[in-house]
Amino acid sequence: MKVAILGAGAWGTALAVLLASKGIPTALWARRKEQAEALRASRENKDYLPGVALPAYLYPTADPEEALEGVELAVVALPSKALEETLRALPLAPWYLSATKGLFFKEGRLHTPSEVVEALTGRSVAALSGPNHAEEVARFLPTASVAAGPLELAKRVQELFSGPTFRVYTSQDRRGVELGGALKNILALAAGMVDGLRLGDNAKAALLTRGLREMVRFGTAQGGEEATFYGLSGLGDLLATAYSLHSRNRGAGERLVRGEALERLEDRGVVEGLYAVKALMAWRERTGLELPIAEAVYQVVYEGLDPLKALSALMAREPKAE
Amino acid sequence: MKVAILGAGAWGTALAVLLASKGIPTALWARRKEQAEALRASRENKDYLPGVALPAYLYPTADPEEALEGVELAVVALPSKALEETLRALPLAPWYLSATKGLFFKEGRLHTPSEVVEALTGRSVAALSGPNHAEEVARFLPTASVAAGPLELAKRVQELFSGPTFRVYTSQDRRGVELGGALKNILALAAGMVDGLRLGDNAKAALLTRGLREMVRFGTAQGGEEATFYGLSGLGDLLATAYSLHSRNRGAGERLVRGEALERLEDRGVVEGLYAVKALMAWRERTGLELPIAEAVYQVVYEGLDPLKALSALMAREPKAE
Repeated sequence: MKVAILGAGAWGTALAVLLASKGIPTALWARRKEQAEALRASRENKDYLPGVALPAYLYPTADPEEALEGVELAVVALPSKALEETLRALPLAPWYLSATKGLFFKEGRLHTPSEVVEALTGRSVAALSGPNHAEEVARFLPTASVAAGPLELAKRVQELFSGPTFRVYTSQDRRGVELGGALKNILALAAGMVDGLRLGDNAKAALLTRGLREMVRFGTAQGGEEATFYGLSGLGDLLATAYSLHSRNRGAGERLVRGEALERLEDRGVVEGLYAVKALMAWRERTGLELPIAEAVYQVVYEGLDPLKALSALMAREPKAE
Repeated sequence: MKVAILGAGAWGTALAVLLASKGIPTALWARRKEQAEALRASRENKDYLPGVALPAYLYPTADPEEALEGVELAVVALPSKALEETLRALPLAPWYLSATKGLFFKEGRLHTPSEVVEALTGRSVAALSGPNHAEEVARFLPTASVAAGPLELAKRVQELFSGPTFRVYTSQDRRGVELGGALKNILALAAGMVDGLRLGDNAKAALLTRGLREMVRFGTAQGGEEATFYGLSGLGDLLATAYSLHSRNRGAGERLVRGEALERLEDRGVVEGLYAVKALMAWRERTGLELPIAEAVYQVVYEGLDPLKALSALMAREPKAE
C-alpha cells in the first residue's frame, strides 16, 4: 500500500510526514523538479515547513508516474488556483482525498475542491478539513480533523491518518465541511484587519461570532448542514486560523490594513481567502443573500474601501435584537 | 435620572465610565471606604482599571444611602461569592441590572446571578453579558453586548448603555445569556491549560469547539435557547475570554499548569470559573449529564489531576463520528 501526496507546500508536506511516520510509503509530489531535488537532498522542506525532518518512508519526487504508480489514493494538496491545470496533467489514482481549501465559481454555481476533483477525474473523492496548521501537525502537536465523503472512503481516511496526536472524525456532509474551510479564510482576513487596526479582543470576538452566523447562513443555503459549521471543520478551523500567528489569511488582513499592496500579500505563500471571496461575491450577485462581512472584505481588498470605515459600517448595520 | 453601580471592580468601573461619559449621573459604590476615597482623590481606579480617567459625572462613594438615593436602577457588578451578603445590606433600588457572571447551586438547582438578585430583592432584573473586557470597554474600543430580561427593561438597558463603541442588543433569554457567561469561564480555564502546556493553536481551537458544544448541551438542558449560546453572550464571550491576555480565568488555567497553587490564583482578582465549576459539578452529580471538559477542569483544579493527562483523556474519549 502506498499513498501519493500531490503538492509539496506546507500542508501537503505535513500530511506526508504524518503518513510516513506511521510507516506508510508516501510519495510527495512537487510540481517543480528543483524542489523535489532539494527535498531529497536536505530531507527537509526548507521553503514551506522548515525545521521538520522528513521521515524515511517519505520520498519526494517531481515525476508524476513515479509518484502515482501503484498508489491506493492520491491526496490533493494543491493551491486551489492551480488545482485543475495540475491535476489534468497527472495520471489517475484509484480515488482521491482533497486537502485543498477553496471555492470555485463556474457556470453560475459554487463548487468545492472535491467537486472539481470529482468532475476532472471521474473518481470518488473525500475531503479532509479541520483546525490543522501544518506547522503544528508536522510537529505532532495534538489536534483533530474531519474526513468527509462516502462513508467507506471517510472511514479509510480515518484509518490511514489517525494517530495519537491526529484524531480523525468522519462526516457525510462533504459540502458543508468544504464550504466551512473556504469561508473561514474570508473571515480570517476580516479578523486580521481587526488585529491590524488594534480594535481589541472584544471586537474580534464579536466579529467572529457574527462571522460564524454568516457562515451558517451561507453554508446552509448552499446545501451544508448547520451542525457541520459549528464543528471542527467550521468553527474549529475558523478559530485556528483567525487567532493564529501562523495563518497567512489572518496575516494578509493585518498587512492590508497596514498599507501593504495586494500584489505583495502572497509573497509568503498562497492566501486562499483572496480567491474565495472573489468566487463568493461573483456567486452572490446572482442570489442577493446578505453576507455583510464577506462583502466588506471584498470591498477592502479589491475596491480600496477603508478598513476602519468598512468595520464601522458592519457594527452600525447590525439589527437591534440579537 | 441617576444610576448606581454596585461594586467598583474593573467591570463595575468600566460600566460607570460608559454611563458617566454619556452625561448620566452615576454613583460607583465601593464596598470599602478607603477604596471610595482613593477613587475620589485620584479620579482613577488604580487597583482594578489603571490608566482610565473617571469622567466628571461619576462619583465614587462607599455610603449605600448616598449611592442608591433617587436612582432609577442599580447595576450589580459584585463578585458572585459576595453578591448575596452585600446586596442584603443595601437599600433597595426600583429595578436591577446584573452584570455579574457566575453560577449558584442551591436546594438542588442551579441559579444565575439575576435569579439570585430577583429572589433577594423582589424586584425586576435584567442581565448584561457579552464579549466585554473592562479594560477595552473603558477605553472605548468597539464591542457589543446583550441585555436580556423582560423586554421593557432590556430596551431601557439598551438605551442607557448604547453608544458608538458599545452596541447593546436585546434578548428575552436571560437564563441562556447568563448560563453562557458562567460556562465560558470554566472553558477559559481549560483553554488556559492548553496555553500553559503549549499544545498549540490547533488543539486550543479543537478544545473550544468541543467546549461550545458542551455549553449548548448543558445550557439547553437548563432552559437556555440554543441560538443564545452561539451568539455574543455565549460564543462571543467565550472567544474574548479564552483568547485574551486580559482574562483572569484563562490566565488562571495557564498558571495552574505552570505549578502555581490554587490559593494564589486569585491574587489579581476573583476567578469566577473556579466557583462556577464547583457549582456545576455539585449540580451534575444529581443529573448524570456528560460535561467532560468541565469535569476535567474540576479534577485538575480541585483533585490534583495532571492537566496533560486530563486533556489527553479528553481527546481519547471523543466519538468517532463528529
